[in-house]
Amino acid sequence: MLILQTVDELKNWVQETKRAGHTIGLVPTMGFLHEGHLSLVEKAKAENNKVVMSIFVNPAQFGPSEDFDRYPRDLERDRKLAKEAGTDAVFVPSVEEMYPRESQIKITAGAQANVLCGAKRPGHFDGVLKVVTKLFHLTEADLAYFGQKDAQQLAIIESLVADFNFPMTIRRGETIREEDGLAKSSRNVYLSETERNEAAHLKKALEMGKNLVLQGREPIESMTAYLSEQTSGKIDYIELLDYPTLTTDIQSDAILALAVQFEKARLIDNIIFNSKEN
Amino acid sequence: MLILQTVDELKNWVQETKRAGHTIGLVPTMGFLHEGHLSLVEKAKAENNKVVMSIFVNPAQFGPSEDFDRYPRDLERDRKLAKEAGTDAVFVPSVEEMYPRESQIKITAGAQANVLCGAKRPGHFDGVLKVVTKLFHLTEADLAYFGQKDAQQLAIIESLVADFNFPMTIRRGETIREEDGLAKSSRNVYLSETERNEAAHLKKALEMGKNLVLQGREPIESMTAYLSEQTSGKIDYIELLDYPTLTTDIQSDAILALAVQFEKARLIDNIIFNSKEN
Repeated sequence: MLILQTVDELKNWVQETKRAGHTIGLVPTMGFLHEGHLSLVEKAKAENNKVVMSIFVNPAQFGPSEDFDRYPRDLERDRKLAKEAGTDAVFVPSVEEMYPRESQIKITAGAQANVLCGAKRPGHFDGVLKVVTKLFHLTEADLAYFGQKDAQQLAIIESLVADFNFPMTIRRGETIREEDGLAKSSRNVYLSETERNEAAHLKKALEMGKNLVLQGREPIESMTAYLSEQTSGKIDYIELLDYPTLTTDIQSDAILALAVQFEKARLIDNIIFNSKEN
Repeated sequence: MLILQTVDELKNWVQETKRAGHTIGLVPTMGFLHEGHLSLVEKAKAENNKVVMSIFVNPAQFGPSEDFDRYPRDLERDRKLAKEAGTDAVFVPSVEEMYPRESQIKITAGAQANVLCGAKRPGHFDGVLKVVTKLFHLTEADLAYFGQKDAQQLAIIESLVADFNFPMTIRRGETIREEDGLAKSSRNVYLSETERNEAAHLKKALEMGKNLVLQGREPIESMTAYLSEQTSGKIDYIELLDYPTLTTDIQSDAILALAVQFEKARLIDNIIFNSKEN
């Protein structure tokens, strides 16, 4: 597995790979890999000749009071896991390599960023759009893979690609969970033992809410009561929206999403389901 | 020469062209072609295996009170000229084809758009960035050609490509002029005979200003006096800035640029020169 640290190294690899007639799949990550990321690599390997993973904790998507500095990092372990999963090349740039100068041009998310995490993290998705646009251009990937756990990010990136005709397709990867239902996340490492046990109730609350929606009932109040009782975390939001438009005008697919702030980790989770099934 | 009217037709041509191992040069235009556009095709032919020209009067870059509806159009003549110049494919999409739905994501120019035409045409360069981003992605061009007559546009597009690592390079084409110095422009057709004669003084004013700058003198006042005397048009702006940063902190290359509003046409012109030569 190649380790590419600079933009020029990545571009050279991309040129060679394209020249050989290979297709490229991109798995963008912030590292501290878990089975969610590795399931995306597996999908990418099945659909592309070559797979490149980026590992970059992107400062542009963290607010000033957020956890950029203490976001978990373990590059040695990441390299090992990426290699075992069959990744062909890992791109691990420095911040200076990705952002050598202040940008003149800005890319901003629209109304899709005014709900869920976007409402709580101003500018977060603009920072995501900035880094993925650069990564899409640098890797010239045919397919790029994003997990549905970050469902709002996925929806906004799908808008980016559609609005500006990027010559690539976004693939969705399903949320990978622990045995008790907790969605895998790099931030789970910051849960205390008590919090870790409580965190299984996030998925249970989502399932309860989904059942209420399918019965034509309002889910938020019951979910709030359930989570308040079952966890010590502070509920940041629980929302039911159309997917992927993220408006309140639910047509068919709906997303039920929540965020809970524990002492050292803010966890998010969601389920997307056909609201018209019964 | 192929005429491509839909995004799918263009994408198919790009795929075939790439598959054959050819490089692609893009010449984006709003049609009503003149020798300025054709000189860009000539440059593109020399540097690429295949040349695609887009002809699209982009509504996103016109303000509500601007001349979108009466911007000159003559597709039949354009096709003939493009073919004679050796263009391989012309992309002539409808507005619906380019903008099938309202965009969620916005691309906005930075401080470079706060001067010159950008100060007078709010949102103009955002509309330019929108269409060129789409064209860059759709054509997957290796090189894209822009005339220096639209120097602010050129500088802002160079920032776009650099800020977001587009896998392409921007080539600058020099301003092509009539014998008396008037810069070729699709809008020249709207000048009255008197205005057409007066318009030659725009270039003369720029040359006068350049000489003053090289003598270490302030050029704006003299140029304003000269143009007020020599033309019936209303001076929109005359500015001296660093190029391509478009700040007032002139390092080496400077741009002296002006816009004059005649009765039915607003003309722009500029010269870029090394302000430190003598």
